[in-house]
Amino acid sequence: LSKSNTRHEMVEGFLDHASRGDLVRVSDMICYSSKLLNESGKQGWTALMLAARNGHFDLVKALLSKGCNKDLKNKSGQTAHDIAKFWGHKHIADLLVGDGKIRDILPSTGVTEHENYFSREYLSRMSDKRTDSGWLSAKQSSPETVFLLFHNLDPLVTSGPEHMNNSQAKLKLCRLKRDSVGVLLKKSDIVVVFLGVEKQEYGLIAWFALNVEENPSEILKIEDSHSFFLQGPMPTLLMLNEDEGGIIAQARSVLAWHSRYSFCPTCGGKTKVAEGGYKRTCLTEGCKSLLGIHSTCYPRVDPVVIMLVIHPDGNQCLLGRKKTFPPGMFSCLAGFIEPGETIENAVRREVMEESGVTVGPVRYVSCQPWPMPSSLMIGCISVAVSTDIKVDKDEIEEARWFTRQQVIDAIVKSSKAVLTMPPRQAIAHYLVKHWTCLNSNL
Amino acid sequence: LSKSNTRHEMVEGFLDHASRGDLVRVSDMICYSSKLLNESGKQGWTALMLAARNGHFDLVKALLSKGCNKDLKNKSGQTAHDIAKFWGHKHIADLLVGDGKIRDILPSTGVTEHENYFSREYLSRMSDKRTDSGWLSAKQSSPETVFLLFHNLDPLVTSGPEHMNNSQAKLKLCRLKRDSVGVLLKKSDIVVVFLGVEKQEYGLIAWFALNVEENPSEILKIEDSHSFFLQGPMPTLLMLNEDEGGIIAQARSVLAWHSRYSFCPTCGGKTKVAEGGYKRTCLTEGCKSLLGIHSTCYPRVDPVVIMLVIHPDGNQCLLGRKKTFPPGMFSCLAGFIEPGETIENAVRREVMEESGVTVGPVRYVSCQPWPMPSSLMIGCISVAVSTDIKVDKDEIEEARWFTRQQVIDAIVKSSKAVLTMPPRQAIAHYLVKHWTCLNSNL
Ligand SMILES: [Zn+2]
Ligand SMILES: [Zn+2]
Repeated sequence: LSKSNTRHEMVEGFLDHASRGDLVRVSDMICYSSKLLNESGKQGWTALMLAARNGHFDLVKALLSKGCNKDLKNKSGQTAHDIAKFWGHKHIADLLVGDGKIRDILPSTGVTEHENYFSREYLSRMSDKRTDSGWLSAKQSSPETVFLLFHNLDPLVTSGPEHMNNSQAKLKLCRLKRDSVGVLLKKSDIVVVFLGVEKQEYGLIAWFALNVEENPSEILKIEDSHSFFLQGPMPTLLMLNEDEGGIIAQARSVLAWHSRYSFCPTCGGKTKVAEGGYKRTCLTEGCKSLLGIHSTCYPRVDPVVIMLVIHPDGNQCLLGRKKTFPPGMFSCLAGFIEPGETIENAVRREVMEESGVTVGPVRYVSCQPWPMPSSLMIGCISVAVSTDIKVDKDEIEEARWFTRQQVIDAIVKSSKAVLTMPPRQAIAHYLVKHWTCLNSNL
Repeated sequence: LSKSNTRHEMVEGFLDHASRGDLVRVSDMICYSSKLLNESGKQGWTALMLAARNGHFDLVKALLSKGCNKDLKNKSGQTAHDIAKFWGHKHIADLLVGDGKIRDILPSTGVTEHENYFSREYLSRMSDKRTDSGWLSAKQSSPETVFLLFHNLDPLVTSGPEHMNNSQAKLKLCRLKRDSVGVLLKKSDIVVVFLGVEKQEYGLIAWFALNVEENPSEILKIEDSHSFFLQGPMPTLLMLNEDEGGIIAQARSVLAWHSRYSFCPTCGGKTKVAEGGYKRTCLTEGCKSLLGIHSTCYPRVDPVVIMLVIHPDGNQCLLGRKKTFPPGMFSCLAGFIEPGETIENAVRREVMEESGVTVGPVRYVSCQPWPMPSSLMIGCISVAVSTDIKVDKDEIEEARWFTRQQVIDAIVKSSKAVLTMPPRQAIAHYLVKHWTCLNSNL
């Protein structure tokens, strides 16, 4: 934003972004000036009303989470709720009805639930169906069922323009049907994971994921010439839209577990897949893993802490870089939670180990599933009580205090930026952005 | 508290509990009347000053976390910090020096870090020493080193009065020395886990844990006639003091992993223990698990959500009971976080699956390591947006809305109580208690 922009022009621009559903620009602008939230333009329309008018569900959610006033009326006397209802955006209208009372039951924390990439639930998991083998096999035979195909954990995607319904996503998962994957389903060694059913058509359309080790292109009937297996987990996976990011988080995590846990860790014996792909049962008679509920039989989720450490002066934050990062990139410190450790203590230990900085208070902010292979990133913000940095070179290459202005420059990709940041799909990006909005004087 | 108690008597009682370091009673009373926090008695002494005088570290921490004013002075002009320093309680004095500014950097959330049972860090893990085999074996030969012994994951404890330095704990871990366990250390099939070094004597006294499958009593030289292996993980483990609870959380989680993960899940081959007990390396040449960093080689921590669901009216909460619970006991709902799922979505899914209730906002409160075998309980409070209960009988036997008064009666073990609650060492207990203090009109 150039300084010559008048306030009026800024509001106009803001409302224009809202009208087009540009979540990224709208969020950035709120970050700089939270007063924009309730500003109105022509005919008294606010950003919330424009987003509700044009069906931008995520933007409505984001504006609400930032605390915008949803009771404002435009010059025709309509609230955002009236507008969403009138234009038939039922999901948005539901979002806008009074849950103010519900929120008041919990004390306000300044932190609202943020939907990170990989976090959206497009499907309902319907875990009770996992043990219903009749239902599962009926769904696998249904012509409506959607199959996602992975080759060595790389998903089959398409760049064909006919598949694009979201202008922001460059790629889309190939939604295969029974006829395309029938030959694979008949193979006995293939792992099939039940992902759930589409929430919008409850109970009707089921989704499954398959992983094959040998390239299946030749035996499959896939007519889409734009399709290919998307190689390498990062950052290509971040090119899918938010709905598909959530589906990939679930599918890739479970498939990665199968690819690594073919044998029983307790006895070394072979195992077979059970419960719609959510269990592996040992085939060795008398194995201890068959007694009671044994964690070895279920997919593993590794909790990780990722934290932004704030300088005791309140105006700098600690970021580090691994040798493997692109030049100039810095990110939040992170590490696995150990057995017998709390989230808060893991934050303190990891920051001390990696940077030598002592951390005092720790606050949970938001989390993100990370399917490489199957982590849960637990995002925290914390305050340092010491400032000297001593880097553990085995873990990271460098750690440094950056000012608020330096990270803002990096977030907006200013030419003045002295560092680059992970992409907006990474929770590290969100944590930094969250902080730049805290206690800022705008 | 009987109604005939005058305010004065209540304050006297409160200060008396604080003076004796009775954390449970002090917390209960603050819950009923937060004004007690800053009340003073004889010579202007507050609860904080009395706790600081008598070296009650946990109580000082708890009073601070409840937001008591640490700048108050008694009639001699001393603050709690002055008192702690004078009486030589250095850890308490450190706690009391001005971190007010530090806390101001994060917005206040009404939630402060609560130390649950199993959460205390008595030891510093010193994870960088795990790969230093020379250092590890020197420590194992040192006469000062402490060894904890487990038999099938049950720790060796003592009830002998000579071991008791904390009047609240009924049992204490046996702290064995090199000479007692030397014969075990020489066995090649024994798992030895490095736990860390004592924080108070930094770098000097190391702790290790050993697990044996056959009862070692006969081959060991243990002279304590009061010692025995504490059977069954629950609730006996909760009888240790807070320091030892934290040690057990770490030791038992890692040992339980070894007892279940003897074989490589990727190839079924044998593995060997590495890195001070924090890694198992596959012995099969060419195994995929040897390439890069493979999660299969490291201890597993299972993230679990445990949540208190508040009724939309703000005055009732949802609790459920499993068939295995003692009669009359109800607790918070809970369940494992699935691959690709956020904490908040796991809360919503589990509550829906178990009770049929729809959950809206979710707020993280506190977490607790739970070493049966190795979970991380992530405690949340959430608000329901529907109220009809439909129980999944496979998961729980019954779920019910209880009023605030009903759970308060259960917490204080009133004779009027219509339910019992899990013990204070369980995070479920803390979540319920935390809620009874929220928005209460006292
Ligand atoms: Zn087995
Ligand atoms: Zn192997």
